[in-house]
Order: sequence, then C-alpha cells, then structure tokens
Amino acid sequence: MNETTTNLNDVDMATLHQLVEKYQVDPEAGHSTWSARVQWLGGFRAEAQVRELPPVRADEPTWLAGTDTGPNAVEHLLGALGQCLAVGYAANAAVRGIRIDALEITLRGEIDLPVFLGLAGGNAGYDRINVEVHLDADAPRDQLEELHRHVLATSPVGNTLANPVQVEARLAPAASSD
Amino acid sequence: MNETTTNLNDVDMATLHQLVEKYQVDPEAGHSTWSARVQWLGGFRAEAQVRELPPVRADEPTWLAGTDTGPNAVEHLLGALGQCLAVGYAANAAVRGIRIDALEITLRGEIDLPVFLGLAGGNAGYDRINVEVHLDADAPRDQLEELHRHVLATSPVGNTLANPVQVEARLAPAASSD
Repeated sequence: MNETTTNLNDVDMATLHQLVEKYQVDPEAGHSTWSARVQWLGGFRAEAQVRELPPVRADEPTWLAGTDTGPNAVEHLLGALGQCLAVGYAANAAVRGIRIDALEITLRGEIDLPVFLGLAGGNAGYDRINVEVHLDADAPRDQLEELHRHVLATSPVGNTLANPVQVEARLAPAASSD
Repeated sequence: MNETTTNLNDVDMATLHQLVEKYQVDPEAGHSTWSARVQWLGGFRAEAQVRELPPVRADEPTWLAGTDTGPNAVEHLLGALGQCLAVGYAANAAVRGIRIDALEITLRGEIDLPVFLGLAGGNAGYDRINVEVHLDADAPRDQLEELHRHVLATSPVGNTLANPVQVEARLAPAASSD
C-alpha cells in the first residue's frame, strides 16, 4: 500500500501527525529558525539563497531602472504570502477531510514610489494587501469559509504582515584589510 | 560613450532621474500597483507567477511534510527583505557617489510552529527579523552608517514588515458549474 498517493491533497499527513505529537509534548521544539542570504549582483539584481536550494532572482522592471530578470522584492513578498496561504489550505483542508481540486490565489498591493525615492514622507511599504482566493473543493461553502478564516488566522506570513515586526538591521563591522 | 557601463553600481541613473522628475511634478503617478498569482501544485508546493517572468517555486522541507523543491514562504519573505535592501543600497549609494564593491545581507527569524499548527495561541509569524548587512564600499564608516539608516527608513519591504498591514483576504464565490 502506497500511503503517499492516498494522502488527501498530497499532504504528507504521517509527518504532520508526528510533528503535532512532538510539539504537544515539547512546544519549545517548535521554535524554528529560518534564514536567507542575499547576494547583490550589481544594479538592482540580487539573488536570495536558502539552504542548498537554487537561488531566487530579484530585479526591477526596466521602467524602474532595472533589467527585468526577476520579480522585484515587493512582488516576491506578495508571492510569499500566497504560497504561505496555499500551504495552510492544503494542510488544514486535509485535516478536515476536504479535497482541494484547484487553488489559485491572486494578490495585489500599492507602493508609493516617491516615498521609496525619498521625495515624500509616509509609508514606503504596503498599507494594505488584497488577496483573492479561488478555491475549488468538495465541501459546502460554510466549511470553506471556516477553513479560510482558520488559514488566515494561522498563516505565518499573513501574521508577519498583519502585525508589526521588529526589523533589527545591523551594518556589520568593516572587514579587516589585513 | 556608453553611459550604462559608467553608471556607479551599474544603476541606471538616467531612468531613476527621469522617475524622480516625473514624481516631483506628479506624485500621484508614483502610486504603483504590484501583483502576483499563486498556483497550488499539490502538497505544499506552489508557484508564484509575476508578470511574464519565470515562476518562483515554494515548498516545505521534508521534515515539515514537504518535498523540498524550493524555499518555503517564510524563507522567501526573508529573501524579499534582503533583496529590497540590496536595491536600496545600490540606488542610494549611487546617488551619494559611493561605489559598492560587494554586498551580502543575511536574514534570520523565528517561527513558532505550534501556533501555525493550531496547537498554541500567539503570533504565527515573525516577531522579529535580524538582518546583518556586509557592505564593502569606498566610503568612511559614518557615511555608510547614514546610508544604512536611509535604506532602512525607505525600504518598501522593510516598512511593510515594520508596520501593520491590512491583509484583506476574500474567498471568491464558487465558480458556476454550468
């Protein structure tokens, strides 16, 4: 019997259940640390390296003085929010016995470029992000609405955005030239 | 004369100057809208599509019930912050006549997985993100510190994280089955 192929939404429930049991006994074990290393490549190009995975490129569109070789950072941010919600839907639907047939999430937000360019005061970031979830699943609307609320409430990226984060950025000491 | 190759930090200053002049006359033109479309691929895999660029993959590591085919969403988020800061450094250093020889940014944060898994209350997202900027540039330390403060203050992703964002997520009406 191949358990993997029978898992609802192709979610590895055995591993998830093991994690849940582990964290129920030892919640401290669930304090997970994540990291990324960003290398500037010249101009507005930069690559983000995570673990040993292929690097992720960012650039700006040509109208914004870039060379258009990748999404820019505020676009990557929207993608990360959608991808976080997708994981939440897949996992929580599986837990509820809901089969997802299709899921697409569109995200949109506005950036005030004059603030980024130092021409105006105000918030250089997104004030608001609009998300539309297109979910095709075998459950009544009220169950999908409950799933939707739960996914939003427990989304790591969603909560990172909704709540203020302490961004502690430090300029490292200059490398010794010895 | 090839202007592109003589631009400091390979930043397209002509285009930046045109934008600045445009937004000084018409700040409303600087209200830029950004978007992404995320497609769920089964399990914890999802692709983010931005404009016509190659899609960006997300997944979870195997220990977190994924198949490890890409960074996860909270890692992509860290990458986006670093990439945003890299653009800020390149642009603002160029404006100040500072040549950047190398720039690497490392980012780190902690996620409480039991909250994501619905086992505990609290913040499912990052409370804090630690950023270390390794900047090798031809300017005295106090100028680099000023550059650092300016980049942080005007970073779109940095400000999106530091300030609370209104995340308005809506479950679209079910598609008609006609």
